[in-house]
Amino acid sequence: LVSVLSSAIVVYRLPWTWKCSKLLMKFIHAGLNTIAMILAIVSMVAVFEYHNIRSIPNMYSLHSWIGLTAVIFYSLQLFLGFAVFLLPFAPVSLRAALMPIHVYSGLTIFATVIATALTGITEKLIFSLKNPSYSASPPEATFVNCLGLLLVIFGALILWMASRPHWKRPPEENAKLLRPIGETPEGTEAESTMTDGSNADKSELRISSEAARKQNLKVDEAGQRSTM
Amino acid sequence: LVSVLSSAIVVYRLPWTWKCSKLLMKFIHAGLNTIAMILAIVSMVAVFEYHNIRSIPNMYSLHSWIGLTAVIFYSLQLFLGFAVFLLPFAPVSLRAALMPIHVYSGLTIFATVIATALTGITEKLIFSLKNPSYSASPPEATFVNCLGLLLVIFGALILWMASRPHWKRPPEENAKLLRPIGETPEGTEAESTMTDGSNADKSELRISSEAARKQNLKVDEAGQRSTM
Repeated sequence: LVSVLSSAIVVYRLPWTWKCSKLLMKFIHAGLNTIAMILAIVSMVAVFEYHNIRSIPNMYSLHSWIGLTAVIFYSLQLFLGFAVFLLPFAPVSLRAALMPIHVYSGLTIFATVIATALTGITEKLIFSLKNPSYSASPPEATFVNCLGLLLVIFGALILWMASRPHWKRPPEENAKLLRPIGETPEGTEAESTMTDGSNADKSELRISSEAARKQNLKVDEAGQRSTM
Repeated sequence: LVSVLSSAIVVYRLPWTWKCSKLLMKFIHAGLNTIAMILAIVSMVAVFEYHNIRSIPNMYSLHSWIGLTAVIFYSLQLFLGFAVFLLPFAPVSLRAALMPIHVYSGLTIFATVIATALTGITEKLIFSLKNPSYSASPPEATFVNCLGLLLVIFGALILWMASRPHWKRPPEENAKLLRPIGETPEGTEAESTMTDGSNADKSELRISSEAARKQNLKVDEAGQRSTM
């Protein structure tokens, strides 16, 4: 779930995807998020079934509260994202106004999912390790603690990638140059960014996209070479 | 600890502080962070003492691992912040280059501290509630779960405040206008922002600061009225 979610976040940040059309990128982003949502629902059903079979009460722990909050906000995020950014009805001004909120919510939900995972791991270790107990630091405890720490480091890396302005996808006018002939442009709303919503931001995008275009051409060449 | 840490983060984001000199703001930011560091050290010493008296092993849990990681990175952040941004020796170019990393690290450490608190709360609830147990949802459990959830919401609000470009402190040239006569400007390094490091960002600051200046004057008037 965390890996699909993080792929959905960084999909706009990978230079080799900048030559894909924006619509394709949106479909990949929406598709990955839909997969993550399905995984979240499947895992929630599994937890409730497991609790019911074992006669363990549902929704008593902080882990479950934070997790349910994350899933509720994630559904809302998915629904709004679909309605505003994927369907062609929303005006450009609404998209530009909602984009910073969409990006902020996405990253905050991602951080909350990691926090949910960490509390879940803590619970599971305490409940499962009995003889020897968690406090005796058996190899399983050390191993799972390492996994938890790696999850924190992984989350920090994703947030770094998502908040760097020079890893932003260049705007559509330059992407057009890179798109194969025959495809049509599909919108000009503001690019996703942690601090979107300012005019200066767009000029910055324009500047950085010049460099990005050059880089893209290089990547393109490299791509052609590597897929031969 | 979380409240002092968050005050240190948002201290640059409060419009009523924009009329203070930058050096004063830096001292408040550094001072609050120093208090937070002292609190972190005191609480760590208390935990080790408590564990030793009760013969509980130290550093076995995921909570302790994440917490120690956060404290180590926080010390590093505090040391580097002091050396680069507070002492007058670092060149402007180094400050501008390190500022985005400083801001990112600060926010990531803050998120990690909240994750540490949540795993700690989870542990404590499981260990402390025995009769009735945590899974029976006694009032204490519900109360502490609510506190945990509020901590997540509080963290999300702080990240929202810290990542909004229009809540950025306006640059020094405008702050000068607002500063009482007699004070001297003390540097022109880049303002703290989640996505700093671009030229366009500065022009954006210049635009937003025009509005900010007007807002400041209003706040100033309101402040004079309210303190009469």
